[in-house]
Amino acid sequence: MTLVVKALLFDVFGTLVDWRGSIAREARAVLQPRGYAIDWLAFADAWRGEYQGAMEEVRAGRIPFSKLDALHRRNLDRILPRFDADGVGEEDRRNLNSAWHRLDAWPDVSPGLARLKRKYLLAPVSNGNVSLMVDLARRNGFAWDAILGAEFSGDYKPKPAVYLDAAEAFDLTPECCLMVAAHSDDLAAAAAAGLRTAHIARPDEKGNGRGEAAPSIGVDFATRDLADLADKLAA
Amino acid sequence: MTLVVKALLFDVFGTLVDWRGSIAREARAVLQPRGYAIDWLAFADAWRGEYQGAMEEVRAGRIPFSKLDALHRRNLDRILPRFDADGVGEEDRRNLNSAWHRLDAWPDVSPGLARLKRKYLLAPVSNGNVSLMVDLARRNGFAWDAILGAEFSGDYKPKPAVYLDAAEAFDLTPECCLMVAAHSDDLAAAAAAGLRTAHIARPDEKGNGRGEAAPSIGVDFATRDLADLADKLAA
Repeated sequence: MTLVVKALLFDVFGTLVDWRGSIAREARAVLQPRGYAIDWLAFADAWRGEYQGAMEEVRAGRIPFSKLDALHRRNLDRILPRFDADGVGEEDRRNLNSAWHRLDAWPDVSPGLARLKRKYLLAPVSNGNVSLMVDLARRNGFAWDAILGAEFSGDYKPKPAVYLDAAEAFDLTPECCLMVAAHSDDLAAAAAAGLRTAHIARPDEKGNGRGEAAPSIGVDFATRDLADLADKLAA
Repeated sequence: MTLVVKALLFDVFGTLVDWRGSIAREARAVLQPRGYAIDWLAFADAWRGEYQGAMEEVRAGRIPFSKLDALHRRNLDRILPRFDADGVGEEDRRNLNSAWHRLDAWPDVSPGLARLKRKYLLAPVSNGNVSLMVDLARRNGFAWDAILGAEFSGDYKPKPAVYLDAAEAFDLTPECCLMVAAHSDDLAAAAAAGLRTAHIARPDEKGNGRGEAAPSIGVDFATRDLADLADKLAA
């Protein structure tokens, strides 16, 4: 591969931040003082479990584009009864929903992005909305060049436009962009749109051994973490 | 005024960067070695003079949204004959057009933004496209939270959507956003959309004494420069 990559585009949930552990912690912080005793990791899994279905409503054109915050809120209202938590009030629901703005990065991410930024343009291409990306960046010290992704495009991955709009925003052809994700389906869609691909192993993303330790498709770079990616890109 | 401002939205050309001096310098660097002897500041003025008319084509719906880079290029092709420079070749034209990505900030800007970032969310709300904003940020050390503005909205200021989309991206009501500009017409449009306003004096933006030393409309803050704005906002 002739290395003409100029921009790195990042998936965020699972790839850069530990949504599962963070949501479990935040849910516990909000609901335990109200007397709820819940399996907090199962709660995080249930909430995330509604994720694709909600976005599919937008992708299929059945509802207009809505920020992920709005979809998360709808999904929260849907899962609370399953945990016998119908009684959670409006203010607590809002606070819970903003937990997605308080996710913590995996330990390799902030130093890895700082190295990569010296050589590449960097942007999240996430399904999270701009304010969510901004809050995660402030919390974890991510120094993005721009916030691209779903809200910029008005549609959700894996629609090709989301990847292509990001390349176009940087004035780059797709093959000059490297999509970085811990999920083979995201990378497959990026590759179909013409982007190059890097997989980050997050074997414990969904609980012990329930994430991708390796890609299930061919990728340009298969890496252990962002430090390994930076090594492979000579950044 | 009860200070509920949470985000500062910045005009860029003229407010943060010296387009006139920078374009004159860059045009000279490209064209003088080709044997052209031109009044370089007049060249910059002529190029900028085509700016509003080109955007009005988009605002009025006569042409689809085009990045400012594309409008700048069309305007460049239009003005070169006026300077007896019809013979400038394609590669030089491209290089000239990218001069807008190489503008230098006024000296108060980078330290001012660094102070303001400690307390506020910061984004450009410029008519410049994303890649142009990214290059200016890299060159001058601007640390934006997000790149908002024309390309994010698919239309040009002073259309209200450009200001309102920026507030919405930060999950803020317009009155929690402060538009910062050296141009009273930009601030008037922002105020009409419900934003608060800060004027930065750039009396020499268009040549000695041909910029705005003070706003011609009522604003929330009239300031000398970004250090003065940071003082007034207690940042």
